Amino acid sequence: MIRRVTIATGELARYVDGDRLWDRLIALARFGALENGGVNRQALSDEEIPARAQLVQWGQAIGVEPSNDAAGNLFLRLPGTEPDLPPVLVGSHIDSQPTGGKFDGSYGVLAALESVEAIVAAGVRPRRSIDVVSWMNEEGSRFAPGMMGSAVFSGARKLKDILGVRDKSGITVEAALQKVLAAETSLPRRPLGMKTAAFLEAHIEQGIVLEQENKSIGIVSGIQGKRTFRVEVHGEESHAGTSPRSIRRDAFVAALNIVQALQNAMWDEADVVRFTIGMFTVSPNAPSVVPARVTFSIDLRHPDARTLADLGDAIVDICHVNRGPCEVSVKELLHDPPLEFPATMRATIRSVAVALGVPWSDMPSLAGHDAKHLHYICPTGMIFIPCKDGISHNEAESIRREDARDGARVLAGAVFTLANSS
Amino acid sequence: MIRRVTIATGELARYVDGDRLWDRLIALARFGALENGGVNRQALSDEEIPARAQLVQWGQAIGVEPSNDAAGNLFLRLPGTEPDLPPVLVGSHIDSQPTGGKFDGSYGVLAALESVEAIVAAGVRPRRSIDVVSWMNEEGSRFAPGMMGSAVFSGARKLKDILGVRDKSGITVEAALQKVLAAETSLPRRPLGMKTAAFLEAHIEQGIVLEQENKSIGIVSGIQGKRTFRVEVHGEESHAGTSPRSIRRDAFVAALNIVQALQNAMWDEADVVRFTIGMFTVSPNAPSVVPARVTFSIDLRHPDARTLADLGDAIVDICHVNRGPCEVSVKELLHDPPLEFPATMRATIRSVAVALGVPWSDMPSLAGHDAKHLHYICPTGMIFIPCKDGISHNEAESIRREDARDGARVLAGAVFTLANSS
Repeated sequence: MIRRVTIATGELARYVDGDRLWDRLIALARFGALENGGVNRQALSDEEIPARAQLVQWGQAIGVEPSNDAAGNLFLRLPGTEPDLPPVLVGSHIDSQPTGGKFDGSYGVLAALESVEAIVAAGVRPRRSIDVVSWMNEEGSRFAPGMMGSAVFSGARKLKDILGVRDKSGITVEAALQKVLAAETSLPRRPLGMKTAAFLEAHIEQGIVLEQENKSIGIVSGIQGKRTFRVEVHGEESHAGTSPRSIRRDAFVAALNIVQALQNAMWDEADVVRFTIGMFTVSPNAPSVVPARVTFSIDLRHPDARTLADLGDAIVDICHVNRGPCEVSVKELLHDPPLEFPATMRATIRSVAVALGVPWSDMPSLAGHDAKHLHYICPTGMIFIPCKDGISHNEAESIRREDARDGARVLAGAVFTLANSS
Repeated sequence: MIRRVTIATGELARYVDGDRLWDRLIALARFGALENGGVNRQALSDEEIPARAQLVQWGQAIGVEPSNDAAGNLFLRLPGTEPDLPPVLVGSHIDSQPTGGKFDGSYGVLAALESVEAIVAAGVRPRRSIDVVSWMNEEGSRFAPGMMGSAVFSGARKLKDILGVRDKSGITVEAALQKVLAAETSLPRRPLGMKTAAFLEAHIEQGIVLEQENKSIGIVSGIQGKRTFRVEVHGEESHAGTSPRSIRRDAFVAALNIVQALQNAMWDEADVVRFTIGMFTVSPNAPSVVPARVTFSIDLRHPDARTLADLGDAIVDICHVNRGPCEVSVKELLHDPPLEFPATMRATIRSVAVALGVPWSDMPSLAGHDAKHLHYICPTGMIFIPCKDGISHNEAESIRREDARDGARVLAGAVFTLANSS
């Protein structure tokens, strides 16, 4: 029974049930549960299908309307009093890394569901509809790259361009998607994308800032920029016993010198630059053969666009200057500039946190999220909650029950405010 | 027809036919011939079987007696006038790397055959028998490690310990050996190993010393020592976007620092130390994941035992001092001290070179050879000839016709001297 259209932030927060939220987090983690407390529930997998059904069941129990789209995004709609207005979207993803934790992504979806349940329980109904959303394939560990569902929803990628992507065993996104959608024939299929009033995403921080500052939520200022490169160093294979150092064209030694120079160039006292060489492959990779070729990746991230541009632009020269007697080629694969969420969205979240007395901190997101794609089509904001020791993408991932609750309270207040906006 | 038991070195040399030797080198290279002038004739392969038959045919045409042993070593014996004396062995191997050259190994076998043919043609016959030998699996590229035939012949390894070694497709040495020996049922089977008066091996240098010094042959002083290690660096996987440099336990960065420190410690102005990291494997090797583990190989070689010991003994400490926040473990896989061939063997070769006016140089062998195993059971010596630009284990491997001839002349003189010794 809907009694009214507005509610005080503090009152709505009391309808957020921290225990119910926690129980659902633990219940959802049964789908794809691993031995050491983590989850293997990769995108569009057999483990994700019943987890999606569980979301639908929870949603239907509180009267929201489930649907999906051709990209496998799942929606649970609480209709507003003016259902023709563009809705507010709130959510994240429930797919995981192969050895992921229980909270990455799932927290954002279940905190969104809890927000809607609190609104329902409080007997209020906002003007705009609210869609709890679970985006398809955020992690990208089965089908690369990630954030596929939000990319297609926002128009950043075309559906047809992701359907042919294959996992390691050769299964396409198209085939995996068909299987998931076949299990949900009872759900209405929405058109891809829609006019959206705003998007909010709650997520675990995956860093140590909130824990160190002893804050309950982070108000995310934006997402740091990212540039990725692939470097290939070509030398010449030779005999480890006979060829003297002075005439070798050792691709490993050249790559080593390049990497050392890159590390020096990227080093910052403040430890804000994220510079990672995660992939480094040597060929022929035989103990007694001087390497002929090295291929390595560069992952460079920074919240400041100018700094990211300057550091990234220096890479080609550094590679060439330090290549020694080898050849080197550098290819930039990605240049995502940093993005800043609108001040109005951050102010909305902040005013809820202040009203509830929840300690907050402004901070950038150092990881990418589905919010990145939504940012380009509607006002977008993110709320972080602390995670233990910054550990994520790991079975040991852990959060505190009270942080989960406080995050959901702030999220509920912000969602309700946005859904009642004109 | 045998006319006499001695011959002047210069006279015997005139019976060495450089054109015949060259033609045989080119003819043998047809077995396993590759498009770019090289050879793929790996140990005990289908390519090696007809190449062995060709050797037998050439040998039988000059009246030598072919035989093989259970380890797949092939012998062509010129009986001496006192056939009960231990024979002189002379030869090398005809197996190749997957993309090997025409001359590595084959030169040593065919120069040995040419030496015997010159002795026969000169109508002389030494006291001791001379066995031209082609050792089984010197390269170790199909079945690791190499020098199997000479190891079993000399007793360094037991036959039963090599029979189970498998190639990439799962074929055992035992099965491959059976196939080769089944093609040679017409040959007598010798017992494994025998009392041996001396061993001589001619080989291409696989380096640039002779070319740079403009010498026709190298009198090999010994084989440099070799130590190999496997280093494992353990860090912790973390997120390339969120984890700050200061708290990372990046196994790649730690390995990089270790390798840099090792390179500094192993650097020598004279460029005698051979220090190679040929294998370097990163895990999980994903662009956006801070590496959790690196495994790398160290191949360290030096002709001086003390230096090799000191440099090798420093490795464990250097790895530990430079491991940063990671764990490191170091395992030594092999410690072959340098070996020095007997001065008498080198003097025998030198006196022939002087008598023939062939420019020579004393030099160590920087690569391992079958002579390493023979050294421990009989007086052993080696003769190098120049190879173009030091290139070997490569289709581009190249030697000069006149160097091939001069090397065989010196070899023939030295073999004859040894076979006539008391």
